[in-house]
Amino acid sequence: MSTRLPTLAVVGATGAVGSVMLDILSTRENVWGEIRLVASPRSAGKRLTVRGEEVEVQPLSPEVFDGVDVAMFDVPDEVSKEWAPVAVERGAVAVDNSGAYRMDAGVPLVVPEVNAAQTRDRPKGIVSNPNCTTLSMIVALGALHGAYGLTDLVVASYQAASGSGQEGIDTLHDQTEKVATDRTLGSRAGDVRAAVGDLGPYPAPLALNVVPWAGSLKEDGHSSEEMKVRNESRKILGHSELRVSATCVRVPVVTTHSLAVHATFDREVRAGEARELLASAPGVVVQDDPAGSEFPTPIDVVGTDPTWVGRIRRSVDDPRSLDLFLCGDNLRKGAALNTAQIAEVIAGEFTG
Amino acid sequence: MSTRLPTLAVVGATGAVGSVMLDILSTRENVWGEIRLVASPRSAGKRLTVRGEEVEVQPLSPEVFDGVDVAMFDVPDEVSKEWAPVAVERGAVAVDNSGAYRMDAGVPLVVPEVNAAQTRDRPKGIVSNPNCTTLSMIVALGALHGAYGLTDLVVASYQAASGSGQEGIDTLHDQTEKVATDRTLGSRAGDVRAAVGDLGPYPAPLALNVVPWAGSLKEDGHSSEEMKVRNESRKILGHSELRVSATCVRVPVVTTHSLAVHATFDREVRAGEARELLASAPGVVVQDDPAGSEFPTPIDVVGTDPTWVGRIRRSVDDPRSLDLFLCGDNLRKGAALNTAQIAEVIAGEFTG
Repeated sequence: MSTRLPTLAVVGATGAVGSVMLDILSTRENVWGEIRLVASPRSAGKRLTVRGEEVEVQPLSPEVFDGVDVAMFDVPDEVSKEWAPVAVERGAVAVDNSGAYRMDAGVPLVVPEVNAAQTRDRPKGIVSNPNCTTLSMIVALGALHGAYGLTDLVVASYQAASGSGQEGIDTLHDQTEKVATDRTLGSRAGDVRAAVGDLGPYPAPLALNVVPWAGSLKEDGHSSEEMKVRNESRKILGHSELRVSATCVRVPVVTTHSLAVHATFDREVRAGEARELLASAPGVVVQDDPAGSEFPTPIDVVGTDPTWVGRIRRSVDDPRSLDLFLCGDNLRKGAALNTAQIAEVIAGEFTG
Repeated sequence: MSTRLPTLAVVGATGAVGSVMLDILSTRENVWGEIRLVASPRSAGKRLTVRGEEVEVQPLSPEVFDGVDVAMFDVPDEVSKEWAPVAVERGAVAVDNSGAYRMDAGVPLVVPEVNAAQTRDRPKGIVSNPNCTTLSMIVALGALHGAYGLTDLVVASYQAASGSGQEGIDTLHDQTEKVATDRTLGSRAGDVRAAVGDLGPYPAPLALNVVPWAGSLKEDGHSSEEMKVRNESRKILGHSELRVSATCVRVPVVTTHSLAVHATFDREVRAGEARELLASAPGVVVQDDPAGSEFPTPIDVVGTDPTWVGRIRRSVDDPRSLDLFLCGDNLRKGAALNTAQIAEVIAGEFTG
């Protein structure tokens, strides 16, 4: 058993998820020796603070991975595709938060509360981090699946602007400012569209609106985000027969994804028992007392680590189904936190 | 066959739905003789414009219904409960847009595109208008039910502020103004809550948020709105075995409810065939070309009459299920327009 603390590289340290990552690494129990910050050459040389110390950002290069034990990637798919194998070749385990490797049969897709053990089964030296929408619900659903056996999931999402990065956040703030003072807006077709101006990364205005689209067009009219929710849920739960339908919708919320989930199980369920089971599940907080206005909402959940669950009800017409409303911070558990948790599982291999 | 045009009373003429009603009565083909406007005594004496003419609002009293053939009620449940029978006693047919009579076995619940014929079967002299959330989807679902036979509905709503009346609209505008200029908001738990001030009719802030609650608490944790979607869908479709699960969520949209619907049928369905069927259904517009950013959103639908449907997909894992995204103006088809349509069906009895 070595006593050397492993070396971590954070690739994409200057991005929206990267900055949350530095915050998370600064507040969690420290399991790392050196933390190396890496970004594209144009961001190199910046000095960022992690664990209370200023660290200079280094440009992405093969040599930057020399001596690195774990390399986290918070970068676009094509950057991960090129550089994760380089990090592995130089001796690191890559933990990737892009979509590049999630459905690769040789790469485990890990949520530590659900399938931490799969981290060790990584023939390519890469471990993948799920999409933020899947991550906002899967910890809670994993706990229910373990107890009752999931057969069907019907998911409707209420996704935050920061799922589209800083450009999404800026677009929502810009548009909100433009519609804020004209109280006639929202009552005639197109009036909000004329007022907001630039659509940013979205196909329709987001302020005072909801937009039933996220990602790119996939087979039969499904969006890439909807297919990710289906395919990733199946892979994480190890349940290739799970039937999943998702409709992904962007809403004018800055950060924290919400989901209305209708979950059907192998056997009858009771809401009270499910509530107790969720309350004792790691990484889940139950907030469920509508009489006292207690249910999760994104503005209260943002900045926190757990998956919040409320509105836990058994379907009136199907004793095998539960209806739930879940919220999770898409930049924390939905991205940086889960990546950090995976990296910590791997760090455990080094430190015993 | 009489040639006398029937007399209409609009009770609640000064409210949010009432003012949309006057607009609708002014633009639809005229089937009415006199139109009498009625409101609470404190609004009586106001002069409102309908069909291009100024009409003085009369105070609610038994005598105001003398000579009236059809009396529309856009008032709270308790006012309808007291006054609809008075109108009937004085010889009118009451068309009620409150929740007072919707589930009454002696009162038909009518959506003319779906079950117009039931208007005649009114032993109490009252015809009921469905809840706005049910109305935002039921015309489209009625068409699909007729073709394929519905077995299950899973509904997640994205409900607009005007579903809570003018107070809801004002609250959303007030809160939007308060969060418009501080670009740090929405990134820390509670920061929006501190900024918005008054919650108005909602249990949590609505600006930059979504709130998984609408209505009052009913059995087993369901909200009244969720139970209405279930019970009213069953009654309108005449399908007492239909399994329905709904999660109703308020979003920061001024007017127009949206719904993500997962509908399961008796037999296999094809998205293309369903799309054609919906495109030819009365009262439905299909807007479904994601590649061209074509799908309904509330800011584009507000102020229009039809139910708009997009994102029509067959479930990847169940050939008997369709996923849809629907938008309907909750003040027009969701309230005033459907009431006007029912009243016109009844007017047809007078004019042949």
